[in-house]
Amino acid sequence: MDEERIRQSYERAHDPSRVLALSDGVFAIIITLLVLEIHVPDLAQGQSLREALEEIRPSLTAFLISFVVVAIAWAGHRDIFSLIRRIDRALVWLNIIYLLPLCILPFGASLIARFENEPVALRIYGLLLLATAVSRLGVWWYASGRPHLLFAPVDRRSRRAGAALAAVPGVIYAIAIFTSNDAPTASLIIYAAVPVLYFVGITFTRSSAPLGSTEQEFT
Amino acid sequence: MDEERIRQSYERAHDPSRVLALSDGVFAIIITLLVLEIHVPDLAQGQSLREALEEIRPSLTAFLISFVVVAIAWAGHRDIFSLIRRIDRALVWLNIIYLLPLCILPFGASLIARFENEPVALRIYGLLLLATAVSRLGVWWYASGRPHLLFAPVDRRSRRAGAALAAVPGVIYAIAIFTSNDAPTASLIIYAAVPVLYFVGITFTRSSAPLGSTEQEFT
Amino acid sequence: MDEERIRQSYERAHDPSRVLALSDGVFAIIITLLVLEIHVPDLAQGQSLREALEEIRPSLTAFLISFVVVAIAWAGHRDIFSLIRRIDRALVWLNIIYLLPLCILPFGASLIARFENEPVALRIYGLLLLATAVSRLGVWWYASGRPHLLFAPVDRRSRRAGAALAAVPGVIYAIAIFTSNDAPTASLIIYAAVPVLYFVGITFTRSSAPLGSTEQEFT
Amino acid sequence: MDEERIRQSYERAHDPSRVLALSDGVFAIIITLLVLEIHVPDLAQGQSLREALEEIRPSLTAFLISFVVVAIAWAGHRDIFSLIRRIDRALVWLNIIYLLPLCILPFGASLIARFENEPVALRIYGLLLLATAVSRLGVWWYASGRPHLLFAPVDRRSRRAGAALAAVPGVIYAIAIFTSNDAPTASLIIYAAVPVLYFVGITFTRSSAPLGSTEQEFT
Repeated sequence: MDEERIRQSYERAHDPSRVLALSDGVFAIIITLLVLEIHVPDLAQGQSLREALEEIRPSLTAFLISFVVVAIAWAGHRDIFSLIRRIDRALVWLNIIYLLPLCILPFGASLIARFENEPVALRIYGLLLLATAVSRLGVWWYASGRPHLLFAPVDRRSRRAGAALAAVPGVIYAIAIFTSNDAPTASLIIYAAVPVLYFVGITFTRSSAPLGSTEQEFT
Repeated sequence: MDEERIRQSYERAHDPSRVLALSDGVFAIIITLLVLEIHVPDLAQGQSLREALEEIRPSLTAFLISFVVVAIAWAGHRDIFSLIRRIDRALVWLNIIYLLPLCILPFGASLIARFENEPVALRIYGLLLLATAVSRLGVWWYASGRPHLLFAPVDRRSRRAGAALAAVPGVIYAIAIFTSNDAPTASLIIYAAVPVLYFVGITFTRSSAPLGSTEQEFT
Repeated sequence: MDEERIRQSYERAHDPSRVLALSDGVFAIIITLLVLEIHVPDLAQGQSLREALEEIRPSLTAFLISFVVVAIAWAGHRDIFSLIRRIDRALVWLNIIYLLPLCILPFGASLIARFENEPVALRIYGLLLLATAVSRLGVWWYASGRPHLLFAPVDRRSRRAGAALAAVPGVIYAIAIFTSNDAPTASLIIYAAVPVLYFVGITFTRSSAPLGSTEQEFT
Repeated sequence: MDEERIRQSYERAHDPSRVLALSDGVFAIIITLLVLEIHVPDLAQGQSLREALEEIRPSLTAFLISFVVVAIAWAGHRDIFSLIRRIDRALVWLNIIYLLPLCILPFGASLIARFENEPVALRIYGLLLLATAVSRLGVWWYASGRPHLLFAPVDRRSRRAGAALAAVPGVIYAIAIFTSNDAPTASLIIYAAVPVLYFVGITFTRSSAPLGSTEQEFT
């Protein structure tokens, strides 16, 4: 009886539901706040609205890249946490660390919208993307190696596949950061291309995964 | 036993609850962010507040139309997902695509609030409404035709009724976009009228639907 | 078997959970968006920060009144919906109508923060408060009289008590709107006083309610 | 039968789920709204972006301190409410009072970002932090002493440990407020240091706690 009560209290303390509620809230807000960075243009003397709208094209680019990045971060979060039954203190804080660069992303988007060709701006945006990839890797690696936090143990192969999905974009972002000084436009193109690569990567991972494996359900 | 575990893991990976949490968050935020586009007016020399407030009437119009559009998008989303038991990768991303034009809507509202008579502004706003209708059609058509994702199969008649509820507004929006050049005010009136038509359409669909059919519960 | 399936499908279509998710999201966002109307002051030549902060006192007043109004609107919403088992089409839309004036409240707060002594501003703010009271009355009266939507029927006495909790503030707001022309400050004081009256009213309602009645649990 | 119905109705009226939904929403929004206070700099004549970005360092400091404060407030809220089975009227309102200073925090962050060395600004920010600590203490002390609201009674030792986790930061904030006049920078450093102390304090509390005690699960 008493054992049962201790077990129940243990489960309540490790219940992930509020972590998911906070995270889904944060994802939803970031994805909708991004639009606030697209400003309705002021018309200069003799300028048509169509011309003025051309000027917000960089804002739109920054918006779209950031929208897809946040959507992927959410889908990846959902993939990871669909395996997690219990959460512990470290995972709570790793999750907060995962949300931190995403929360700063609207500022980064605003920065590259305004200073499209400035290496510093592109570097800061890239660092935010890199931080997202690294902290995702941290959450995955920590959780996937602790069977007592999971519904079912994750085998080695799946663990590595999940890690690669965070690490490979991370490496590409790092490269784009390094090249931003010499080729700012190239960096921006890389930032826009990574999501595409990510989709291809997941599609490949899913199709080559053994039946019933974890990777088969990656979104 | 092992089969049972695989089945449970399958259900967890296809659980729609987080998709609903994200979507409800996004709807809630858009519907409340819209008000930020209504700015408290600055009083010009000798101007009364009442006169100054007349100037924000376009903002209020844009707010109200957008509010109703988002509310309908949410109610339609609720109707569709009340039938869905499981979600798959394509549906996750179709849902994100559904949220995208809605997330841009506050910008569109801001644009028509400021440039009420500009065809370009009305066209952009109309394109956002059209994109919402098209992506809703996509979500409905994809999901309603896949019984393994549903609580119960949707019959042909209901499928078409649900498709019409997205397609008809879409067609009307497309017409309004085409006429925006010659008659911008007409476009705005059409954007405002579609929700009314939508309510009438659903009321008719519900009353003419056979007992126990899916359309009877459309909101 | 088939009857069971129809019953389940009926329950799913009338499940209030997403209405609550949207509403809680909207309440949470409004209550936090309000702070955006309090602007950090610019220092005029030779002005100390303390002096500059005096100038944002109206913003703070508007914030606090609005914060309490939204909190009460949420608590009342929770009280009502804790009795509701099923939702129907009318209730979905009555709920949206309830959220509408609340969504505009940040604009109203901004307006009275800037034009503290302007009857027009106070009238608009008052109209928003009145609209909240009236739509709350609508939700309550509609739902409390339909036993098939409720966990348990609400008796007459409780129905009237719940209606009074929305109607009395509504009447007071209406009076404050009428007097705003002659005594703007009085209107503002009334807006600030209604929440206090509301708390007293609920405390009285609870203590005088028969054991096990609905009003005993009003928040 | 009738008793059963009264019991169920009692449980529904005291169900904490919507309080958690509102609170998680508020936490999620505050944590993401904070970024709106970091403004993309305007470049002065001949100024490089890198130089301009130096100027937003105070914004970044204010953002990071506030981010951690909100994250801790959420984690503490989760710790407390993981013990709470039922909520009553007082706890609903204590929770709203807990959310109030957090909702004002973005304004406070904006204030110290702009007036880093102004004692008034630092005092206001400190007062918000102090109010958060005091109201957390109130929620904890009220709930932990009422077994009918809890899953399991909290023993004396755990009650005091939980109170200390709110009271000790509170006292330190109070000291920082008092010293802000003479040493504004010291106050800011204290605000930044408290979260670190908090983490150390929890780690110590957990490790010295008896097996199966409440404190062992503090996050």
